[in-house]
Amino acid sequence: MLVYWLDILGTAVFAISGVLLAGKLRMDPFGVLVLGVVTAIGGGTLRDMALANGPAFWVSDPTDLIVAMVTCVLTLALVRKPRRLPKWILPALDAVGLAVFVGIGVNKAFYAGTGPLVAVCMGVLTGVGGGIIRDVLAREVPMILRTEIYATACILGGVAHVIAYQLFHQPLEKASMMGMAVTLLIRLAAIRWNLKLPAFALEERH
Amino acid sequence: MLVYWLDILGTAVFAISGVLLAGKLRMDPFGVLVLGVVTAIGGGTLRDMALANGPAFWVSDPTDLIVAMVTCVLTLALVRKPRRLPKWILPALDAVGLAVFVGIGVNKAFYAGTGPLVAVCMGVLTGVGGGIIRDVLAREVPMILRTEIYATACILGGVAHVIAYQLFHQPLEKASMMGMAVTLLIRLAAIRWNLKLPAFALEERH
Amino acid sequence: MLVYWLDILGTAVFAISGVLLAGKLRMDPFGVLVLGVVTAIGGGTLRDMALANGPAFWVSDPTDLIVAMVTCVLTLALVRKPRRLPKWILPALDAVGLAVFVGIGVNKAFYAGTGPLVAVCMGVLTGVGGGIIRDVLAREVPMILRTEIYATACILGGVAHVIAYQLFHQPLEKASMMGMAVTLLIRLAAIRWNLKLPAFALEERH
Repeated sequence: MLVYWLDILGTAVFAISGVLLAGKLRMDPFGVLVLGVVTAIGGGTLRDMALANGPAFWVSDPTDLIVAMVTCVLTLALVRKPRRLPKWILPALDAVGLAVFVGIGVNKAFYAGTGPLVAVCMGVLTGVGGGIIRDVLAREVPMILRTEIYATACILGGVAHVIAYQLFHQPLEKASMMGMAVTLLIRLAAIRWNLKLPAFALEERH
Repeated sequence: MLVYWLDILGTAVFAISGVLLAGKLRMDPFGVLVLGVVTAIGGGTLRDMALANGPAFWVSDPTDLIVAMVTCVLTLALVRKPRRLPKWILPALDAVGLAVFVGIGVNKAFYAGTGPLVAVCMGVLTGVGGGIIRDVLAREVPMILRTEIYATACILGGVAHVIAYQLFHQPLEKASMMGMAVTLLIRLAAIRWNLKLPAFALEERH
Repeated sequence: MLVYWLDILGTAVFAISGVLLAGKLRMDPFGVLVLGVVTAIGGGTLRDMALANGPAFWVSDPTDLIVAMVTCVLTLALVRKPRRLPKWILPALDAVGLAVFVGIGVNKAFYAGTGPLVAVCMGVLTGVGGGIIRDVLAREVPMILRTEIYATACILGGVAHVIAYQLFHQPLEKASMMGMAVTLLIRLAAIRWNLKLPAFALEERH
């Protein structure tokens, strides 16, 4: 039940992140609506296409679609004159959406009967998919490539979720809360203290 | 039946738009073929993946695939020396394909049993999907982001289609004609008179 | 059976190509893992989404997923200090993966009961899909657009495969070997002798 409300929350924050990015691109309001909605439901749509366990989630139950649209319209109406939003707002919103969506993706994979490795992949795909589509459309470098400890947070959160569920036999809802907490805390810590892993860089040949 | 021929027409014009874009990129003929075909069938493929109501439309009936290929080959053969095509040709072709594909997408969604909101989304996805893939591959800013009153035309056309069908109980074929006319007229008017909606732009923080 | 091992090989070489590209982008190790895995399994995933003949191949049998991950980790561990890899290594690896994946895509389409034209398209999609996703994410121009005789090799290999199977009634495994050999030899010849087809270029209007 808590997962249901977290899903609404994740959908709303991703829609806001799409609208805020669109605000830099001087698009018209309906274009902004499309970018916000795609950001909010893109990751779960890719997951459902790969799982092939029925149509995309918003086809059978348009709740999230409506949430994304209403959030876009409200953001368009209210954020026209941003009162100098602090710099950490967008990454923090993104972190919340990311954590929630990774957890939901892992859950959906388990419901569809996949093993633990595929479940982690579905979690990562759900978490990063919408943001990747948003950034590719807006011709930004996708956050998963440009941002430190981004894929890392998703993968570790998904692994924690799977371990809690399969090794420690926690109920799936509780396990997903743990996984979401891991993803969220790692991302927030990375944003707050600007943490980095050592980069993998190949020297260019001369 | 008319919808069947409009589908052929939409497929052909989108294939031409892919080939003409490829002409700016100095690709070899088979690469051009791939870009043209992807532009023509990409939007409907994304729609069918999301609906999960059977395989992509060109898998079960390759008519549109063949139309796209033949159109690409003819365009490659005939347009090698463009006789200074007028500037409005590409946007006008794109408008025709867009209008037709939005209508077909809404129809397919209704056939699959979705509600009106999802049907409009499927229409928009069908209309803009192929062009988005074309532009992302060619590293252009997608038309839906850079072009005024583009998403707007799709959404209003889809909404008109749905209203004619569900509120005024028109037969689906007639309702789809009305929706297509709305999308097409809005796009052509926007091209002709260079119409714009007020842009949504957030001030950059300094 | 040989096809099984070629599939493993193709998955590994595409994973390596993703990791080597990531090495230019200064990503952290988990981001590299995501890019390598997406490159390795992206094409087959798009094919399975379009065929809608069950979930993506790595959902029902995660072998390729594990191969891709292990390859990424090994590449990350071993290639940190590249001993001046010769310049042709990456294109040659890519050619091997391309040839194998085109053949596997054609086979999967025939198993799903499609006709020959759709089978060639599925082969091309499987072959080029992963590399396209890799290049779009890394904001490179996709190889299929920038590289001479790339789509050409896929299409001719797929056509040879289909002809051997349907016209000359070879067993599917043998036909797929022939198709793979055609794709591979054309790509290697194009790399070695820098072959080009005449480019299709439209003059810009002035």
